[in-house]
Amino acid sequence: MPVLVMKFGGTSVANLDRIRRAAKRVGVEVAKGYDVIVIVSAMSGKTNELVGWVNETSPLYDAREYDAIVSSGENVTAGLMALTLQEMGVPARSWQGWQVPLKTDSAHSQARIEEIPTDNLNGRFNEGMKVAVVAGFQGISPEGRITTLGRGGSDTTAVAFAAAFGAERCDIYTDVDGVYTTDPRICTKARKLDKIAFEEMLELASLGAKVLQTRSVELAMRYKVKLRVLSSFEEQSDEAGTLVCDEEEIMESNVVNGVAYSRDEAKMTLVSVADRPGIAATIFNTLSDAGVNVDMIIQNISEEGRTDMTFSCPTDQVARAEQSLVAIKDQGELNYAELVADTDVAKVSVVGIGMRSQSGVAAKMFKVLSDEGINIKVITTSEIKISVLIDRKYMELAVQALHDAFELDKAS
Amino acid sequence: MPVLVMKFGGTSVANLDRIRRAAKRVGVEVAKGYDVIVIVSAMSGKTNELVGWVNETSPLYDAREYDAIVSSGENVTAGLMALTLQEMGVPARSWQGWQVPLKTDSAHSQARIEEIPTDNLNGRFNEGMKVAVVAGFQGISPEGRITTLGRGGSDTTAVAFAAAFGAERCDIYTDVDGVYTTDPRICTKARKLDKIAFEEMLELASLGAKVLQTRSVELAMRYKVKLRVLSSFEEQSDEAGTLVCDEEEIMESNVVNGVAYSRDEAKMTLVSVADRPGIAATIFNTLSDAGVNVDMIIQNISEEGRTDMTFSCPTDQVARAEQSLVAIKDQGELNYAELVADTDVAKVSVVGIGMRSQSGVAAKMFKVLSDEGINIKVITTSEIKISVLIDRKYMELAVQALHDAFELDKAS
Repeated sequence: MPVLVMKFGGTSVANLDRIRRAAKRVGVEVAKGYDVIVIVSAMSGKTNELVGWVNETSPLYDAREYDAIVSSGENVTAGLMALTLQEMGVPARSWQGWQVPLKTDSAHSQARIEEIPTDNLNGRFNEGMKVAVVAGFQGISPEGRITTLGRGGSDTTAVAFAAAFGAERCDIYTDVDGVYTTDPRICTKARKLDKIAFEEMLELASLGAKVLQTRSVELAMRYKVKLRVLSSFEEQSDEAGTLVCDEEEIMESNVVNGVAYSRDEAKMTLVSVADRPGIAATIFNTLSDAGVNVDMIIQNISEEGRTDMTFSCPTDQVARAEQSLVAIKDQGELNYAELVADTDVAKVSVVGIGMRSQSGVAAKMFKVLSDEGINIKVITTSEIKISVLIDRKYMELAVQALHDAFELDKAS
Repeated sequence: MPVLVMKFGGTSVANLDRIRRAAKRVGVEVAKGYDVIVIVSAMSGKTNELVGWVNETSPLYDAREYDAIVSSGENVTAGLMALTLQEMGVPARSWQGWQVPLKTDSAHSQARIEEIPTDNLNGRFNEGMKVAVVAGFQGISPEGRITTLGRGGSDTTAVAFAAAFGAERCDIYTDVDGVYTTDPRICTKARKLDKIAFEEMLELASLGAKVLQTRSVELAMRYKVKLRVLSSFEEQSDEAGTLVCDEEEIMESNVVNGVAYSRDEAKMTLVSVADRPGIAATIFNTLSDAGVNVDMIIQNISEEGRTDMTFSCPTDQVARAEQSLVAIKDQGELNYAELVADTDVAKVSVVGIGMRSQSGVAAKMFKVLSDEGINIKVITTSEIKISVLIDRKYMELAVQALHDAFELDKAS
């Protein structure tokens, strides 16, 4: 039998009614002849409640206990989903991570999947089980302890199962009906994409479009798992939602397929740093050791042996970045006149695999922003993405202007 | 190191504050030099919430899924307790049933414990762990699925661990400060017992005194595990609570040590049954097949080949008993004039190992009730117990009068 993986997020299983609705969707796929692996999240709010208890109990908690506690929400949903399917007459049973077993490394609370043996589930499929309901987000370490894969880890669980079982597709049911050209709350002309390439989705996910966990997209790309994002709140056809797939499967594509933004970016500038070899290494090694995720970097032209070094990092890491840079200044390893943090910025990006073959996208983006009177503070580019840091107050304007200029409201 | 088992029920771990209070008690025992195994229930209310979801999803639920779902509450408490102890500087970790592993048979939702290997936990104790926090109520079947031991099963988990690890004692922390001569809500003169014999506790537990699960007392008796019942809401000394122990350890004892009662008993009478050999077998086989737990039985003197047969059973089984008896009458296997159910009765019992060596207890009990004008409807006795069925309205009066007459307010 062909295998289909269906993943339901927290809002899609928030209560018994929604679990019933999700189970009906599963029943439709079973009727088509699929053996279905259902991956479930905890009922929405449950994981936050558990995380709250852990933090209140022990601010510097033991990650092994954290995992044992927060993984329990998924177990409840898995059992309830299996019961609901049985009640509908569909042969189903639940599986917790350690029962499959979904084997991970020992990096508790951010474990990486190492192996998913298929014999256990396949044995049951051969005996007539039609649906295996698997608790998402969790696995088992080599030491036999429960691990979790990080927030949003159920997406990654789903893709990993799809890869291990050679599933025809991995359907991610969520509270939106697909991937959009940009956030519809900011730009009313935002259009749902029927298809998007893995690489584009990866850029959009890492830029803050929260539809899919970044890791799950990486995994899908590596194992060529067809991913579909669709809404659990609407009647669905086979063509619903957005298919995330290999770019070869996308016949024609716009040059730019999405405009993403992030408010969580801060800009930091080291003013008047001595411009000598090794200075950049000193700065960014220091930040890396302090756990600061540096995104964009620019260095001004050197004047009289001194330069300004600017970088961006997540807003909540600014304090840590400052602390570590002040420390090495005090130790005499780095000399700079001033450290300026600007948290009143936003990052806006355009993404599209068409950029590889078409030039002029950057020039057009800068012109659009310039025409709106928006000053660009930092720029970074990748093969299929251009990101700029701008004043936060212009963020919505920039998104709308870029969406219009690249005609994202029109299908290719 | 000597091992101590400490069990905390749902009200003793109802929230983070109470978990902290319980953890402090554990810390006191660790400081005395014990390796401690802590057994925890789910935070009070959690199991009921989960059971409610299961019943709403699937009234005739798959017990395997029921077990997977309802066992999750204990996992949360175990993790939180371990974190709380770590926060206090006590080396601790949590264990779920399958991790120990606590091996059971496959009788889901009422599984029986088969084995608790000690190497896993002892290995960790040898490495410096001071407390193993174990999720109560749950185990793993030979098929690798999660089982539960029935409601109140955490008491049984605690005693089983105490037996397996040769614990010096098994302390059951609950919301009462020990075992009383009778229910203090009914009889203000009720006195807390310092010690009570296993056999007596077993009779009291099965008679409805809800301090301990009956199975846990049976297990403690079989393996000679010293059980102590005490309150988690009071500062405790080594002599606090009630010790449930072998009768040899109790120097002197009153003839009667407790007065128990139950409102959940109904009396049923088959009027004018043909009095011929095999008729009792027919009746009670039928009831047994229907799942009716018959407690007391009396048969009147036969007159003209016919007799009245009276028995008692739990109130909520009356409908089932009636149905099964009417069915065999319709099938012609049994002939009786009338079936009368009386649910307006109560059972009152006196319990004491001293009865074995002292006669006249029954006579005294009947006289006390007679002096109060209370009519006895049915009587049963065991070696250490006398139970009577009376009109429910006299229940409190009977308990108080018997408590007075046997001078239970005075220590032996």
